[in-house]
Amino acid sequence: MAKLLALSLSFCFLLLGGCFALREQPQQNECQLERLDALEPDNRIESEGGLIETWNPNNKQFRCAGVALSRATLQRNALRRPYYSNAPQEIFIQQGNGYFGMVFPGCPETFEEPQESEQGEGRRYRDRHQKVNRFREGDIIAVPTGIVFWMYNDQDTPVIAVSLTDIRSSNNQLDQMPRRFYLAGNHEQEFLQYQHQQGGKQEQENEGNNIFSGFKRDFLEDAFNVNRHIVDRLQGRNEDEEKGAIVKVKGGLSIISPPEKQARHQRGSRQEEDEDEEKQPRHQRGSRQEEEEDEDEERQPRHQRRRGEEEEEEDKKERGGSQKGKSRRQGDNGLEETVCTAKLRLNIGPSSSPDIYNPEAGRIKTVTSLDLPVLRWLKLSAEHGSLHKNAMFVPHYNLNANSIIYALKGRARLQVVNCNGNTVFDGELEAGRALTVPQNYAVAAKSLSDRFSYVAFKTNDRAGIARLAGTSSVINNLPLDVVAATFNLQRNEARQLKSNNPFKFLVPARESENRASA
Amino acid sequence: MAKLLALSLSFCFLLLGGCFALREQPQQNECQLERLDALEPDNRIESEGGLIETWNPNNKQFRCAGVALSRATLQRNALRRPYYSNAPQEIFIQQGNGYFGMVFPGCPETFEEPQESEQGEGRRYRDRHQKVNRFREGDIIAVPTGIVFWMYNDQDTPVIAVSLTDIRSSNNQLDQMPRRFYLAGNHEQEFLQYQHQQGGKQEQENEGNNIFSGFKRDFLEDAFNVNRHIVDRLQGRNEDEEKGAIVKVKGGLSIISPPEKQARHQRGSRQEEDEDEEKQPRHQRGSRQEEEEDEDEERQPRHQRRRGEEEEEEDKKERGGSQKGKSRRQGDNGLEETVCTAKLRLNIGPSSSPDIYNPEAGRIKTVTSLDLPVLRWLKLSAEHGSLHKNAMFVPHYNLNANSIIYALKGRARLQVVNCNGNTVFDGELEAGRALTVPQNYAVAAKSLSDRFSYVAFKTNDRAGIARLAGTSSVINNLPLDVVAATFNLQRNEARQLKSNNPFKFLVPARESENRASA
Amino acid sequence: MAKLLALSLSFCFLLLGGCFALREQPQQNECQLERLDALEPDNRIESEGGLIETWNPNNKQFRCAGVALSRATLQRNALRRPYYSNAPQEIFIQQGNGYFGMVFPGCPETFEEPQESEQGEGRRYRDRHQKVNRFREGDIIAVPTGIVFWMYNDQDTPVIAVSLTDIRSSNNQLDQMPRRFYLAGNHEQEFLQYQHQQGGKQEQENEGNNIFSGFKRDFLEDAFNVNRHIVDRLQGRNEDEEKGAIVKVKGGLSIISPPEKQARHQRGSRQEEDEDEEKQPRHQRGSRQEEEEDEDEERQPRHQRRRGEEEEEEDKKERGGSQKGKSRRQGDNGLEETVCTAKLRLNIGPSSSPDIYNPEAGRIKTVTSLDLPVLRWLKLSAEHGSLHKNAMFVPHYNLNANSIIYALKGRARLQVVNCNGNTVFDGELEAGRALTVPQNYAVAAKSLSDRFSYVAFKTNDRAGIARLAGTSSVINNLPLDVVAATFNLQRNEARQLKSNNPFKFLVPARESENRASA
Repeated sequence: MAKLLALSLSFCFLLLGGCFALREQPQQNECQLERLDALEPDNRIESEGGLIETWNPNNKQFRCAGVALSRATLQRNALRRPYYSNAPQEIFIQQGNGYFGMVFPGCPETFEEPQESEQGEGRRYRDRHQKVNRFREGDIIAVPTGIVFWMYNDQDTPVIAVSLTDIRSSNNQLDQMPRRFYLAGNHEQEFLQYQHQQGGKQEQENEGNNIFSGFKRDFLEDAFNVNRHIVDRLQGRNEDEEKGAIVKVKGGLSIISPPEKQARHQRGSRQEEDEDEEKQPRHQRGSRQEEEEDEDEERQPRHQRRRGEEEEEEDKKERGGSQKGKSRRQGDNGLEETVCTAKLRLNIGPSSSPDIYNPEAGRIKTVTSLDLPVLRWLKLSAEHGSLHKNAMFVPHYNLNANSIIYALKGRARLQVVNCNGNTVFDGELEAGRALTVPQNYAVAAKSLSDRFSYVAFKTNDRAGIARLAGTSSVINNLPLDVVAATFNLQRNEARQLKSNNPFKFLVPARESENRASA
Repeated sequence: MAKLLALSLSFCFLLLGGCFALREQPQQNECQLERLDALEPDNRIESEGGLIETWNPNNKQFRCAGVALSRATLQRNALRRPYYSNAPQEIFIQQGNGYFGMVFPGCPETFEEPQESEQGEGRRYRDRHQKVNRFREGDIIAVPTGIVFWMYNDQDTPVIAVSLTDIRSSNNQLDQMPRRFYLAGNHEQEFLQYQHQQGGKQEQENEGNNIFSGFKRDFLEDAFNVNRHIVDRLQGRNEDEEKGAIVKVKGGLSIISPPEKQARHQRGSRQEEDEDEEKQPRHQRGSRQEEEEDEDEERQPRHQRRRGEEEEEEDKKERGGSQKGKSRRQGDNGLEETVCTAKLRLNIGPSSSPDIYNPEAGRIKTVTSLDLPVLRWLKLSAEHGSLHKNAMFVPHYNLNANSIIYALKGRARLQVVNCNGNTVFDGELEAGRALTVPQNYAVAAKSLSDRFSYVAFKTNDRAGIARLAGTSSVINNLPLDVVAATFNLQRNEARQLKSNNPFKFLVPARESENRASA
Repeated sequence: MAKLLALSLSFCFLLLGGCFALREQPQQNECQLERLDALEPDNRIESEGGLIETWNPNNKQFRCAGVALSRATLQRNALRRPYYSNAPQEIFIQQGNGYFGMVFPGCPETFEEPQESEQGEGRRYRDRHQKVNRFREGDIIAVPTGIVFWMYNDQDTPVIAVSLTDIRSSNNQLDQMPRRFYLAGNHEQEFLQYQHQQGGKQEQENEGNNIFSGFKRDFLEDAFNVNRHIVDRLQGRNEDEEKGAIVKVKGGLSIISPPEKQARHQRGSRQEEDEDEEKQPRHQRGSRQEEEEDEDEERQPRHQRRRGEEEEEEDKKERGGSQKGKSRRQGDNGLEETVCTAKLRLNIGPSSSPDIYNPEAGRIKTVTSLDLPVLRWLKLSAEHGSLHKNAMFVPHYNLNANSIIYALKGRARLQVVNCNGNTVFDGELEAGRALTVPQNYAVAAKSLSDRFSYVAFKTNDRAGIARLAGTSSVINNLPLDVVAATFNLQRNEARQLKSNNPFKFLVPARESENRASA
């Protein structure tokens, strides 16, 4: 209850806190949707190290929501080459672990390689770069507009990353097409094909498809002060188009990264897999431990931070730096707060501590700009939920956001209703498909699998919902006589409507259903 | 003068305070209006307990302003059934008194019925719900996007409520159609007809037209844990479509509400009627008293709050709660401020204390987000004005807002000028009609009735105006030589232009006119 | 380096500081630009005292950027008559010096003429008006939406002022056409012709083309309390249309203005001319002195403010007033901060102190809302740059803004690349032409003249860039192995790419080129 209240308060802050959606509206009539569909990706681009699947952003339900959806799969040792977008992105890690990095212009290179490493090159070798982060299954990664992003899979399990691009964000001053600007390669950007346009001209020019390929050689030679061979590589000349956006790194990538992270990750990964296999309700111990590991960067007291599992000596300096960053953030005077040390990911997966929890029904975890402040800038938030068999979430609507529900595991029956009272969706949503629930449309779901799980991307950094049934719902908060008169009910019937369901959001299966499904 | 300064300062705060309009723009050329019209509602939907009239939101002048206008009339004991909208609403109470409620998700049910009431049902009976508010003539009520709203008329006088929906608000992430989501009933929502679309399909489905009617029965049975009969009522099955959005409540609604409010209201109502009949300039005594009554919730010292007219004992607890709320709001540290206790209405009617006042010309009262903080979220404000016969308000323009002027009483001659210097409106605006004055278009008016009164809805929470004539106007603030050179005048003529009109905004009738009209 | 860091930090503040672009997006596909052009003005309207040239705002690249561009030339003693716009404007003074004024509704008339002046009119004469400002070459002037603006050239050198109007600003609630509302005259507003519309009707009515001409005479007679003759002048009746928006003031304008400003200006002007003629890198002495003069209003310690060059006595009172204003702004408690005393201009021209400086390559100076707070409201910023022959600025992109580059002097070769990797511009930009660089498009330039200078208007008040080459660039901040894998390079080649260019933004000509050009 405290958690739900917290959820609701986050909505309250929104109201008077001066936080607005700051998005473009769809064009006239673009949201007159008489039928929604649970959509699969409709295009697939293979790369050397994986593949990128995209949903057509011109599909009416995506146009209404103003978003573009894509899914990248990275094999072991695959690198998604750096790119930036004209709109903010929220990336959910459906599976796997690895590294990601972003480049914030003007921020210092805070990761430095110790001089003695790679002695084969005779102590001359050294590198400096901006912060590199570890990601794991269940993470939400926030990628701001125009910020260069790359990711890398150093594990055997393929990484699957689902990405929502909020094209109508006010951070995008271009038109309503998702655009990827690649720093390298010689392949078409993944959403370009959907630009209904004379494609002929483009293919004729075919200058290389990355941001450097359009410059003349002499400009780049001067700008980088390098030879022609390197400029050719920069421009992706003669590169095989098949290589694509995700490349294989022979021998793996050697990245400067604090060692304890990796150790932590491996433990975390093991537990998650355990957890996925078991079908009992969440075990407390594992969950709590994971939580600690995931969020200790921010919440753990300093001296108990690690438990002697790693070499303490080596990264003392590094930690000193990051703690300075932390204390700075606590002061929060608006002047020292920089994006250079901002947290860019948060785990909302099954191993995180849920916001809504019912051992017989399921769990829900949300991330808003109150949890991950960088989302204030992106104006996006997300929700991860999982439902037991025949459990449901009650009819509700999004107050201030469109929601794109992507099913991760299992399948569920969903119903969506528009303002005419028409059913615009009544069907199954199964793993790998996405369904748009526009702002204010009512939605309810019942799981058809032992565990149905989903992630919902929401186009507001403090997305709020209003529940239409259950304790503390809209109906519950109306005066009894208003309920009776509104629905043409007797008072005792109205009282049943207000109070018969003792649950807030997640309703367990009825006992009969439980037995049937057992 | 102090008041006008205050008005202007409120504009100044806007400038550097980081407050922006946050609205969508009309599509290209949508504001090339060569002619405006004073429009009446063009559609009328009768209900059991009243009627709803609407203006076509596709009318060019409403499309330019990005708003939808409607007017509801509630007979005695009529309840406007709960609904929510995809965009914020400002409702002005043109006539009548009653109750309204909103449901804020996550806020507690703070109104509780004492256990001993309604003993007929054997002490078992009890109700809890969110705050219920009293409204009276002249109130502006702010209804945020997605928030469930209902209203009820408990008096003999019909309630007339004019509602502006700001479709282009950034709080609306859907397209540019006003949408009402009804919680109950079996009738078409009032703006649906204007969606130029194949209407055939909709009628065929006709699933009930409320937000529950699109769900399958089993979903609702599980979500509410009630029987099929109640679900049928919830879905509006078999309900007569004629019943509509406004229903009659037999025997009246019994709502938990502090008793003193009602007493206050009745006194207030009497005075207002007196006031309307008299034609002398506003009498000080009555006005001051009314003000106290209307605004004492916020401004009156605590211990003098009531004058022994009501049972003090009964609502002591309630008041304790509301005062805690008040002191919280004074602290205003951004953390304790919640929408749960936010003020949602303010009286700007003839009985409120005016911001601009000239006993010979008229009065103007505005409400902005400085008066009613919830408007910061809605990004709307309003103005109520009344002019004596032949008095005028000087040519001026809205700096940062579109303005929709709705005439309440009498008639006036208005002139509106666009950037080409063309007269886009020169005509009469009479009670019940609405005229859009787009941003930056110049407007002036002269009353043709003994008392012409209007309400102007403005699409900015800190709407500001620039006056083109009179003291402190634009002309007045230009250097004399600039005025002379600009208008090709002699210096003494320019000086006349700058200083001949001693009034700021409201100009009384010339003496000759006064006599003629007497 | 410190300066560049500062520049970058300003971007960082943006990120978490809750500052967003707050602009409309172009309509679908409006930014699919396959080719950009360096455009000249395509229309020219002669006036009595000068001329206004405009670029067609319907040109695809301006429509993508959502801006309108125009250029006004004022001869000696010419007054640009007061007007206001439906969108914010940034005006860059390409040449000349003079006065400008704005009228902020509700602000007091703070400039008062001493009673004893102009005794010819017998001491009766006196004037009061709002603040009048001096401008000089290199100034950026910020004109908010709806604020009346005028300017005047009191020097022999013609004033050339380039103005960017941000039509898609959220401060504009009308459609996407730039609109000028003239207070006087009988001439068409400069952008009206571009409204593709039946022009016939307009010409027939031809009511005078200023904001007063559309009102009926009796309204204006009442509003101003002046005679018919003055009203005729107000409405521009019988005025020659040729007179236009810029009028000649016979005998010059007499404006209340503190005397020291003028003295300062004349010195400043002389120095600037010197500076333009010399071709050596900037001489320290002159630059420092200019800076002081231009910015002392804010930065100079009080008692050392002037160096006895002007009559100290005369303006003591005035300065007292302005210092009160200053100390108020330092307190900055949000309550005393008013637009009435806000700084509206800042010099970014060649005599200002640069933000990025390389004596062999050139200089860049930016103005954002951190330098000129009123830009927070306009959501615009600007950059002035100048490059020596064959010097280049490295490939980079605008993170969060569209940029409109207007060449002031000389010519340069620019290349612009879109997300497909296509060259959308590879050509010369010469003085007087403008080129749009959409958000996220990469751009680089090399000067072809001894000194190429430009001003870039940016549609974000904290526009940030990401450099693609050089120290601290995107490439530089990526891990070495990521660079190697991304571009398919050996480690040592990747290291060259990361570190061979020791410059941050401005790269001097290679030695060979220098010699060739010498």
